[in-house]
Amino acid sequence: MSILCVGSVALDSVETPFGSVDRVLGGSAVFFTAAATLFNPVQVVGVVGDDYPLDDLDFLAARGADLTGIERASGDSFFWAGRYHLDLSTRDTLETRLGVFADFQPKIPEPFRHARLVFLGNIDPTLQSDVLDQVESPEVVACDTMNYWIDGSRDALLELLERVNILLVNDEEVRQLAEQTSLLKAARWVQERGPELVVVKKGEHGAVLFADDWIFFVPGFPLENVLDPTGAGDAFAGGFMGHLARARSLSAVELRRAMVYGSAVGSFACEAFSVDRLKDLPMPEIDERVEAFRRITAFEMRAPVPGHV
Amino acid sequence: MSILCVGSVALDSVETPFGSVDRVLGGSAVFFTAAATLFNPVQVVGVVGDDYPLDDLDFLAARGADLTGIERASGDSFFWAGRYHLDLSTRDTLETRLGVFADFQPKIPEPFRHARLVFLGNIDPTLQSDVLDQVESPEVVACDTMNYWIDGSRDALLELLERVNILLVNDEEVRQLAEQTSLLKAARWVQERGPELVVVKKGEHGAVLFADDWIFFVPGFPLENVLDPTGAGDAFAGGFMGHLARARSLSAVELRRAMVYGSAVGSFACEAFSVDRLKDLPMPEIDERVEAFRRITAFEMRAPVPGHV
Repeated sequence: MSILCVGSVALDSVETPFGSVDRVLGGSAVFFTAAATLFNPVQVVGVVGDDYPLDDLDFLAARGADLTGIERASGDSFFWAGRYHLDLSTRDTLETRLGVFADFQPKIPEPFRHARLVFLGNIDPTLQSDVLDQVESPEVVACDTMNYWIDGSRDALLELLERVNILLVNDEEVRQLAEQTSLLKAARWVQERGPELVVVKKGEHGAVLFADDWIFFVPGFPLENVLDPTGAGDAFAGGFMGHLARARSLSAVELRRAMVYGSAVGSFACEAFSVDRLKDLPMPEIDERVEAFRRITAFEMRAPVPGHV
Repeated sequence: MSILCVGSVALDSVETPFGSVDRVLGGSAVFFTAAATLFNPVQVVGVVGDDYPLDDLDFLAARGADLTGIERASGDSFFWAGRYHLDLSTRDTLETRLGVFADFQPKIPEPFRHARLVFLGNIDPTLQSDVLDQVESPEVVACDTMNYWIDGSRDALLELLERVNILLVNDEEVRQLAEQTSLLKAARWVQERGPELVVVKKGEHGAVLFADDWIFFVPGFPLENVLDPTGAGDAFAGGFMGHLARARSLSAVELRRAMVYGSAVGSFACEAFSVDRLKDLPMPEIDERVEAFRRITAFEMRAPVPGHV
């Protein structure tokens, strides 16, 4: 069961307190696909300029990414430059050049139109809706968004949400969208507008899944060395959706596992710049980290004390 | 196995977006004791002024708090006034009047000097050391501190830490103390200076226990309505230490449970002003919340796939 992913295919220049890289692979579709193809094939739709080193995506094709939906346009690729602060939780954007992405009109190739799982990376909600119009009868639609669209394209976003099953956003974004301080209330607000499932990503503090009448929480993995958190949220989404596609199930058991696989892959993504850490990551190593998540969260209930009130 | 607790016994005036209270029960020793006595007896040492409504602490005495170590001095009680912001995660201190607390010299009554478990609430580390000098041979010493002492009394604090088994601090504090961004590295730094166990409290994001070669993480409980987070950290410490005293064990199993009981009691504390929610809180209700913590964190490992690499 292939996943259709639409998002940015970008070049990033990133500075962290521990090093810097220039014009490396980036963008939501690239991070998502690098993560999801660890679990399941992905069909990618995006646009790049003349300058994009498409060969560098060969490792994705080699493990099941269909990149024929990445259009090559005349001009420069989407470019983002950022500098992280010492705490690695906050960053300054130094430069954003949309390049060919400014005129991006996603065209879903015929073979991709039967996708059962769709991931709409963080782009204009109107374009996200256009993508859905081109997909025949998706079973599960997941989508990401950001403050910029919540502020500036609220109506289009709310219209889109009616067609979305899983919204993946960060805590600040869901609070802004729902205008609610309580994460629980904010998630319920979103659920009333379409998505049955709301995944709130909290960076180093982990992630929470709000389902109909249950909640699941996974912590951020306690990493000794975070090199570069860029793309961790998209890698989380890729691991999450990748596991669901592999499991062919949205049962509570698999959704919980998907949250942990997402967190595991997101944590690996932070251990190197760009998608480097996701390039060669065997499943046993991912499973090992999932088992480590179990160890850091599992506890035994106290045996009931006879006669104790 | 009684717990000796030394800390502030204060009056608080608190404003939150959902209401306000004036001169209500507050202070680290009061929140700690209100939480810990849900599990186990506590011996309290502190000081109050002429104005303190000691009768309001009767509910603590009724469930096993020995309040004979609370000295009544001439003057005003410690008074704190604060106003929470809309997100309830940040607050402004409007007023702090130390009153009789300014000259507090903890005198441990003879019957308290054999305490096996000691909790040193957040006071001057020199006074915390003075308390330890008066306790015969404590088995477990837990202590809290804050930015003010980390900045201003660093040497005294480091000297104290050599005699401490469990340091309970928030994430900002442990990073400041260890001058490390990574929580893991910060905790290891602390562990090299005395405490075998470091508990990092992260407010709505939960808490982490760093032990010798393992870590345990508990999320913040997803509350629909947080009324007042004042004292939640001390209530956490009370639930944590209270459970350990009740279990008479520092095994990994009991330490993990203690983290969850601490979080459960801390979450209850947020549901009302002052210690109100901890006044009448039967153990089955606490156990129910602990079970809810299990439900929101437990997941099943994936069955190994034969031949899968």
